[in-house]
This record gives sequence, C-alpha cells and structure tokens, in this order.
Amino acid sequence: MRTIEQYKVCDLEFVGTTEGNPYADVTVSATFTREDGTDQVVVGGFYRGGGAYGIRFMPRSTGVWNFSVESNDPLLSGTSGSIEVTPATAGNHGRVLRTTDVRSGNAFGASGESFTFSYEDGTPFLPFGTTCYAWTNQPEAVQERTLETLAASPFNKVRMCVFPKFYDYNLADPELYAFQGEPEHFDHERFNEPFWANLDRRIEQLDDLGIQADVILLHPYDKEKWGFSKMTKAQDIFYLTYVARRYSAYKNVWWSLANEYDLLPAKTLEDWDQYARVIMANDPYGHLRSIHNCITIFDYSRPWCTHCSLQRVDLYRTAECVTEWREDYGKPVVVDECAYEGNINWGWGNITGEEMTRRFWEGCLRGGYLTHGETFVDKGPQIWWAHGGELHGESPERIAFCRKFLEEGPADLGPLAHTPENHAATWDLTVAADGFGTGTDYQLLYFGFFRPSYRELDLPVGKRYQIDVVDTWNMTIDTLPGTFEGHVRVDLPGKQYVLIRLRAA
Amino acid sequence: MRTIEQYKVCDLEFVGTTEGNPYADVTVSATFTREDGTDQVVVGGFYRGGGAYGIRFMPRSTGVWNFSVESNDPLLSGTSGSIEVTPATAGNHGRVLRTTDVRSGNAFGASGESFTFSYEDGTPFLPFGTTCYAWTNQPEAVQERTLETLAASPFNKVRMCVFPKFYDYNLADPELYAFQGEPEHFDHERFNEPFWANLDRRIEQLDDLGIQADVILLHPYDKEKWGFSKMTKAQDIFYLTYVARRYSAYKNVWWSLANEYDLLPAKTLEDWDQYARVIMANDPYGHLRSIHNCITIFDYSRPWCTHCSLQRVDLYRTAECVTEWREDYGKPVVVDECAYEGNINWGWGNITGEEMTRRFWEGCLRGGYLTHGETFVDKGPQIWWAHGGELHGESPERIAFCRKFLEEGPADLGPLAHTPENHAATWDLTVAADGFGTGTDYQLLYFGFFRPSYRELDLPVGKRYQIDVVDTWNMTIDTLPGTFEGHVRVDLPGKQYVLIRLRAA
Repeated sequence: MRTIEQYKVCDLEFVGTTEGNPYADVTVSATFTREDGTDQVVVGGFYRGGGAYGIRFMPRSTGVWNFSVESNDPLLSGTSGSIEVTPATAGNHGRVLRTTDVRSGNAFGASGESFTFSYEDGTPFLPFGTTCYAWTNQPEAVQERTLETLAASPFNKVRMCVFPKFYDYNLADPELYAFQGEPEHFDHERFNEPFWANLDRRIEQLDDLGIQADVILLHPYDKEKWGFSKMTKAQDIFYLTYVARRYSAYKNVWWSLANEYDLLPAKTLEDWDQYARVIMANDPYGHLRSIHNCITIFDYSRPWCTHCSLQRVDLYRTAECVTEWREDYGKPVVVDECAYEGNINWGWGNITGEEMTRRFWEGCLRGGYLTHGETFVDKGPQIWWAHGGELHGESPERIAFCRKFLEEGPADLGPLAHTPENHAATWDLTVAADGFGTGTDYQLLYFGFFRPSYRELDLPVGKRYQIDVVDTWNMTIDTLPGTFEGHVRVDLPGKQYVLIRLRAA
Repeated sequence: MRTIEQYKVCDLEFVGTTEGNPYADVTVSATFTREDGTDQVVVGGFYRGGGAYGIRFMPRSTGVWNFSVESNDPLLSGTSGSIEVTPATAGNHGRVLRTTDVRSGNAFGASGESFTFSYEDGTPFLPFGTTCYAWTNQPEAVQERTLETLAASPFNKVRMCVFPKFYDYNLADPELYAFQGEPEHFDHERFNEPFWANLDRRIEQLDDLGIQADVILLHPYDKEKWGFSKMTKAQDIFYLTYVARRYSAYKNVWWSLANEYDLLPAKTLEDWDQYARVIMANDPYGHLRSIHNCITIFDYSRPWCTHCSLQRVDLYRTAECVTEWREDYGKPVVVDECAYEGNINWGWGNITGEEMTRRFWEGCLRGGYLTHGETFVDKGPQIWWAHGGELHGESPERIAFCRKFLEEGPADLGPLAHTPENHAATWDLTVAADGFGTGTDYQLLYFGFFRPSYRELDLPVGKRYQIDVVDTWNMTIDTLPGTFEGHVRVDLPGKQYVLIRLRAA
C-alpha cells in the first residue's frame, strides 16, 4: 500500500482517454474515505495531458484511507485503491487557517471574530510575507536563485501570481504559458502542462521551506497579446476550477482571487463572489481565501473572505490602520502591500528599510500582519518584488529579528485596547500585551519613529517585572538589572525604533 | 508736534486720578481723527498705576492725526493733541492680516475664502513660527538670551503665553505676576505694572526683530496657587479687556484666545465666542484671532476666527491634513503644533529634525503654515518650547532654508489640486504651483520621506523649463544643465527629503 505523510500531497495519476478535449470533456473525481468511516473527502481531478489524469489528496488524519474514482470516462471510472497515512513529521503542521476555524474544524463557514492564524495542528502561525509576483514566470536560474534567497530569508509567505506580469520593469515574455497555443491564439480550454508542472514543483519547494504560497489567481498587469486579464467569465471559471483542483491538496496554498481587483473593472463584485464559490467548490480543504485592493478596499465582511489582504490606501498611515481594519472586519488583517523598500520611481516602491521595519512592528503590535517587498532599481537585473532573485534591502534582517522576537513571545499577544483609563500613558505608544491585550504578564511598548530619552511607567504593584530595552533597528535587547514594580523611570537611547518589553518575573 | 512712524506704537501717557481702583473705576478712551477727515479710530485706554493712564495708537496712514480723550475722570477728559505720522521705513509693513482682509480694508468681517497672509502694505507674509510658551516669565537673563536666539533664527512668529506655565519641566514660580497681590491672594482687579511693562518691552523687541507675537491669552497649565486658568468669567473679561487695550497698538500682535482650549472644560464654547467679542471690542485694528486645540479641533468656521491655529490630532498624519483643513474652513491654516523636535518623554516632543523639517515642507506646499518647537531634555537648563533660551535641534537651519526658498518663489504659490487627470503623475507627491496651484511657470514636486532614484515628468510642450534638484535636508540646489520640455527623466539622489523645482525658462 502506498504510504503518504499526513498533510502532504498524495499525488495520484490515472490513465484515461485522450479523445476530444479531455480538459473540458472528462469529469473525474475521487472519494477518499477513512477506513474507520470517520472522515470522507471528495476530490476533483484534472487532466495533465497525454492521457494522464491527476487526483491529489491531502490526508488530514493518519491511518488507512480508501478511494474510488468516478468519471464519465470508463477507463477511469471505478478505479479504487488504498493509501496509508503516516503521522506528520517535525515541522509539518498542515494547512494554515484562521485559529477559530482550526478549533471549529470548519474552514468554510462564517467564523466568529478571529484575528489570528494557526496551523491545522494548532501551532500558531504568524505570517511574515514577502512579494515576488512573477517569480515562477522567470527563467529557471532566477527561480532557483529566488528559492535560495527565500530559504535564507525570514519570510514564511510569498505573494505570487499564476500569470506573468507585464508592467514597468516587466516587459519580457515568459518561457512558458498557462495555456496551449501562442500569444493572441491561446486555447483557453487546453492547459500547457510544462507550465503547471513547474508551478507544482515551485509550490512544493516553498512548502519544503515552510513558506505559504499566497497564489494570486488574476491580476491586471497584462500584455495585450496575452490577454489573461481579459478572459471571459466562462474562461475565468474554467481556469479557476482547474487551479483549485490542481493545488488544493498543497497544504501551503492560500487563494488570493486577484491583485488590485479594482484595476480589473470589467469584473464585477458579483463576479468575485462567484469566483470564490468556484474555488470553494473545487477546494475540499477550504484554504484561506482573500482578494487584494489597489485604491478601493474590498468588503472583507463577505463570508467567503477568510481574512483581509489589504493594500494601504494612505501614503502616511499604513500599518497604523490595522486597528480600524480589525474593528471593521473582525478577521485577521494582513497588510499585503505596505509599500516596498527600494528606490524605484513611484512612491509605492521607494521607502527606506527603517520605514519598512517600522511598519512591521507597528502593524504586528496592533494585531495585524505585514508583507514585505523590495524594489531597488539599481541593484541588478532582477527586482525582487516581481522577479525574485536576490534581496538587497536593510529590512529583511530586521524583519527576521521581529519575527523571532514575536514568535518567542506569548501566543495570546494582542493589542492593548485604548480606553480612557490608559489613554494618558499610552496615547503615543503602540502597546501589545498577553491575554489578547488585557494581560499584565507581558507587555511590549513600541515608540516607532518617536525617540524619547526616557519613559516613566506605572507597573502593577505586587508583581515584579523584568524590563528590556529593545532597539528594533540595531537588533539589540538590553535587560535592565534587577526587577521592578510600581513607578519606574526607564532610560532610553533617544533613538527611533525602540521598544520596551515588560515581563513578569 | 510729536512724530511717530506709520504702523508704530504711539504710546501716550496721561495723568489722572489715583482714587478708588482706577483699573476698574476709570473709563478712558481717545478718538484719533486724521486731519483730512478720511479716517478715525477710537482707542481704549488702560491704567498703568501711579495715576498714569496709557493710550496707545497705531497710525495706519501718514499725515497729521488729532486726538481727544474721553473719560469719567475730569483730569483726563477733554485732553487733546496732534501727532504727525511719518511714512513707514524699510522693513515696516504694518500688521499681518489675511490677504483678503488687507485688500478689503476690513479686518473684522467674514472674509471670502482666503488661505494666505499679507502685511497691511500688501507684502506677502509666510509665517514660520516657533514656540516659547513662557519665555517672558523666565528670569531676565533667559529672556535676553531668547531674543538673541530668535534674532539669529528663521522664525518670524512666536507663540507665547501671557501667564506663566506650570507643567513638566515648568515648576518654578515667575519673578513677576500679572496681578497685584501674591499667589492665592491675587487681586484680579489690579494689574501689576512691572509684569506688563516687561511684556510691553518684549513684544516691542519682537517687533524690532520682525517677529509676530502670537499672544496666548489663556491656557490650562496652571498651578493651584496661581489659579489663572480658573478665574471667573468676569475676571477673564476684565483681564482680556485690559490686554486688548494695552497691546492692540502693537502691529506684531496676534490674538490666540487659548492654548489647548479643550483642556479648560469650565469654559464653554459660548464663553470663547464672548471672549472673542471682548477682544474685538477693545482692539480697534482687528488683529488676527484664533484659538488652539489639544484633542478636539475648534470650529474655525466661527466668523471671529481669522485663521486656523491647529494642533495635529493624529500621530502619523500632521502637515498632511492641511489639505482637508483648508477645505473644511476656507481660512489660512497654521499648524501651530505639529510636535516638537527633541527627546522628551512624550510623543508630542520627541520627533527628529528630519521629521520636523519634512512637516514644514509638506505643510507649506499643501498651502499651510507650520510652527516649530523644540524639547531636548538634556541640552541645558532651558527647554526652548517653554523657556526659550537656546536652540539645539537640526531643524531650524533647514527651516531657514525652506523659508528663504519659498519667499523667493512666486507669491501665488499654491497646492496643485488633485484631479483625476493629474492623479497618476502626482498621487505620491506633494505639488505646489504658481497661479495658486493652477500655473505651469513654477512647480515644486516634493517627495517627502520617499526616496526615488529618478522620476519621469511630462512637462508642457512649447515651453522650456529649468530643472533644479533640491535636497531639502542637506540644503543643496542642483540645477540641471540646459532646459527641458515634454517627457524628461530626472535622476534623483535616491535619498529622502528631495524636491524638484521646475521654472519656465
């Protein structure tokens, strides 16, 4: 019996007809049933070309699972078998979902208020994303280099488009296209297997690195000759169905319906709702689903949106808006574009490493998540934000420090609610605390671009505290000698980007 | 005949009764009539102690003016005389008013939309203010040092309180009080002449330096024993009447009814309206009038408010709000507190010199005006923001550069309106242009904290432009060789705080 590790892709291939257009004509699915009858999953299959049909199954529990194939192709229909699922090994925690959905075991329904993510096995997941929009559409050597860079980076999520990108600094045609045919003459009902085989491999490699693939299904940066942004609704749905069936067994996949959806004006809000239903109907696992704006923020209260995937819409307030977005939507807030570190001509891509790092700390302590990107125009042939390749900025090292620091903190860290009682002490600070912002055992007080030379604190009396002065830019943690309670004056370096950590001793 | 220069203080003193309480009992005023009958001003007088009564007149035109005194004191009543007013000499431009009010000749009525200030003689005035709240309540030597510092500074307006300040770093009692008596036992109907004589001298010295005295009449930073913030309404009015009569002849006076009015909750919005009427009734010249908020922005649409005197109410967006405040109120927008350069414990007083300088450029190019302040806790016994003394920050030198740069530019500089047509080219820039934002002969494109390494511009065709790359932090202006039209790529240093200046050749 074939064995597969829990949460990993059980990639089955069956031989069927090559007649007609199997992509469109053949329906194929398989039902996987746990031998003890406690679980069952119906998985849609997909055509791979050359008479090969794929069925990909992600076992969410150990033990023996039996399957049987249903199809309108007699060659496929009735095929059956069994697989044995072995326990997840170290580092394999399954899908990332909203924490509430992990707890409820339902990744499809409306969730109660939930601001955090967890892996399927309950391990907390804090997204620290980056952006390489078209990395899988670059030459092979660049893709390899991107993986090497990612492996050494702090990033555990990457925003990536299926389709190539046509835009400033992105003028080249890719080597492979998603569809058979040539530009201007694509056959939108026949997929180009080498393109998808490459994408399979890249998503799997990301998973091996522990990196979530935030797969952007549609986007507006399109070349007239390609036309991927101007497919008909039927073509969109045909394509989305295929992608969902092909990739939903990859535990590290997130669905992003579109990048800058509002720059695709031909698609209506109803279209996006419908496309989300298509994805959900073909993804039996209920991977995370969202959509990303340019100017007009999407209504993330739509039940199908599991989380917010925002672009900042104010040049000056970015991560600061996490607070109101949490209130607005009651869902995890990911600021998937907060501008990019770099020196490109446009304001979305020329902030400093200091400002990028500040936005991470600011947003994280407000209970959100940030996504990095990099746009240096003069550091080599690739620009990370679109091509991948290499990182040149000053922020990734600091983001690594931020990630480690927060991962080592309490899992129930959350933003301090600003109440009239704490206003005087915290109006100019961003404060996070244990107990989802209500606790007094662990607190982080972040000063951002302010640079006090000292701060007076009123610590709870009856508890002793360790005080650390953290320089988030220089990545130093100075623990003050002794422990403290009550009124304390903490001397600070008078520099920007400093944080005080309080821990009950 | 006594001669006085136009716009200067004609400070007349008359001898009257010392009986009773002359501060409260004696009414005195004088009517000044231009000999040719074309102008007349009625000026309220004030008691100086020792039987001396002051009448201060500011002649707004040259020639002979006759006056006669009216009083309920027979010693004063009927006194008359003449003065000869000589033309204003270089550097003497009269009061600062809204430009529209200078043009209409009416400084009291509701103005049409007006965003700029001018001197009374039509010379444009761009406020570049600073803040020394309690400088005239410091020891004599500190006051002298403050004047020396101001003389060498770029600042042409100073925010200053009449009353002393009791607050962090401001715990000392002043040498002189405004009222006779002692703390806890002040006589609110008897003023202490040495206090006022000092204030007279200081305001006159500021005028000699070309500096506007933005006089803050009431404020909440009060010591229990002083009680200046808790005077009764009658006491407030008695005091405001006195101040207006004593100082309205000083051309450099602006009236600020209060600092952080919303921290004086005992005073109602109706009180402020009434206090404004008291000032207007006793200031025959109609000096500029406003009031300053802490949290709750005042309704600057009140007819008596000549301009907005704002404190930023968002930690992250400060000078950026000038755009909306202009729209909201249709009046000149002065961001009188945009935080202070320094390293004090609180977020209102620990921004960098870079950020202070950025706020000036950002706000000025949006068509507003900024006020500086400085709060270094470790640079000496005085802190500029409250005590005066010396400046230590990095921004004043850059603010001087900004002021010189803008004063040398066109008087009709104004913010470019953001329209759909210019959005793509200017969404990440702050742009000002001649023609109050509509012109094409002079444009400033400011990048703020963004740091592009180049920018492509589409200059109007048919005109040639000189292009300057201005580093507002390092205070350099690099003029590109040649002149340009149409599509141009401008290489930039890839640093923050850069500005492009375009001038039609």
